[in-house]
Amino acid sequence: MTPIVSVFAASPDGGRGLARDMAVRWALIEAGVAHDLRPLSFAELKTPEHKARQPFGQIPTYETDGQTLFESGAIVLHIAEAHDGLLPADPAARARAIAWMFAAVSTLEPVIVEREVAVLVEGDRPWTPERLPLIAARLKARLADLADALGDKPWLEDDFSAADILMICALRRPAAMLLMPEFPALAAYVARGEARPAFLRAFADQKARWQADQARRA
Amino acid sequence: MTPIVSVFAASPDGGRGLARDMAVRWALIEAGVAHDLRPLSFAELKTPEHKARQPFGQIPTYETDGQTLFESGAIVLHIAEAHDGLLPADPAARARAIAWMFAAVSTLEPVIVEREVAVLVEGDRPWTPERLPLIAARLKARLADLADALGDKPWLEDDFSAADILMICALRRPAAMLLMPEFPALAAYVARGEARPAFLRAFADQKARWQADQARRA
Repeated sequence: MTPIVSVFAASPDGGRGLARDMAVRWALIEAGVAHDLRPLSFAELKTPEHKARQPFGQIPTYETDGQTLFESGAIVLHIAEAHDGLLPADPAARARAIAWMFAAVSTLEPVIVEREVAVLVEGDRPWTPERLPLIAARLKARLADLADALGDKPWLEDDFSAADILMICALRRPAAMLLMPEFPALAAYVARGEARPAFLRAFADQKARWQADQARRA
Repeated sequence: MTPIVSVFAASPDGGRGLARDMAVRWALIEAGVAHDLRPLSFAELKTPEHKARQPFGQIPTYETDGQTLFESGAIVLHIAEAHDGLLPADPAARARAIAWMFAAVSTLEPVIVEREVAVLVEGDRPWTPERLPLIAARLKARLADLADALGDKPWLEDDFSAADILMICALRRPAAMLLMPEFPALAAYVARGEARPAFLRAFADQKARWQADQARRA
């Protein structure tokens, strides 16, 4: 069976490739795995049928024969374990790449998402203008540490890996991109990822889907 | 070489086993792996020497021959891959357990930590009393989904696994425990974890260390 990735039927990102299916689609294309999509409306995400796939009613999920997986980090790791080229062969480097995968989704991304929540969920609250600099300071501390760790390496573990997919997808979120002028090495790292043929194809795929959906609604 | 786990020299949790080394120490004891500790002061965490181990200057790290790992999720996964009993043998169940590991650290824990940041970092700000119910509502939505997914199973993937270690360590944080009266199935799940001999030993170990450190300072 061709694997199926669940995605937003109409992504709120306006075709900018910021939804969490992007990392999964990028990894699948890097690994040369054909896949189908399951577009879901916001209402469909919260149905018992989808919550059986994804307990929190989110995208993406990854369905193969007899297996439905959730959590973009876990899905990308699963793809990387099953196909060559997304994790180092050396066991110590492989374990460190997996550490960077966890760092992307649990150390970097939550601080990035904190700013998105402040703007998107609490944007109309009187305290938000004062909170944004506090959140930015927390995020800058993480980005400075990440830039130090990356140093002048092209990728987190020398060769491109699944860790870079998750990290670059986290850094591409607007709350982090806003700060990139202060972190030119990270901006260049994101640009290196975005220049990869697999990224470009995954990006074009999601953008074409978004545009087609918009045209259908027009 | 006996693995070394870095821990706070003086944990701010007052010996309640809430620091992120707890999951690693619990997993090591479940797996029957002896380990040593590397206690670090807050100043030592931010040194170049420690940032070479842990890019963000945090605990825990896990040092073995020729390998230093960071991120509690990645360390627990590494231990679970190297030893029997912490991941299901069936490949599909194993992949789902890993999905739950990512869910613990990237879907549940960030919302729990958001409340901690509000209280500990922004507690003196005028907006905090109004923000706490908003954060609690976001967290309750996640906890309700988690309770539905757990259902009447004892553990996330039937048998106890590394996923339960990470999830229970996240749920034990005070911001989540505050809400447990509304989620009795999750409270019982946490209590099942806390009753395991390996948890009890890891908990007693860190508490004894904390008490010895306090006595030394007195």
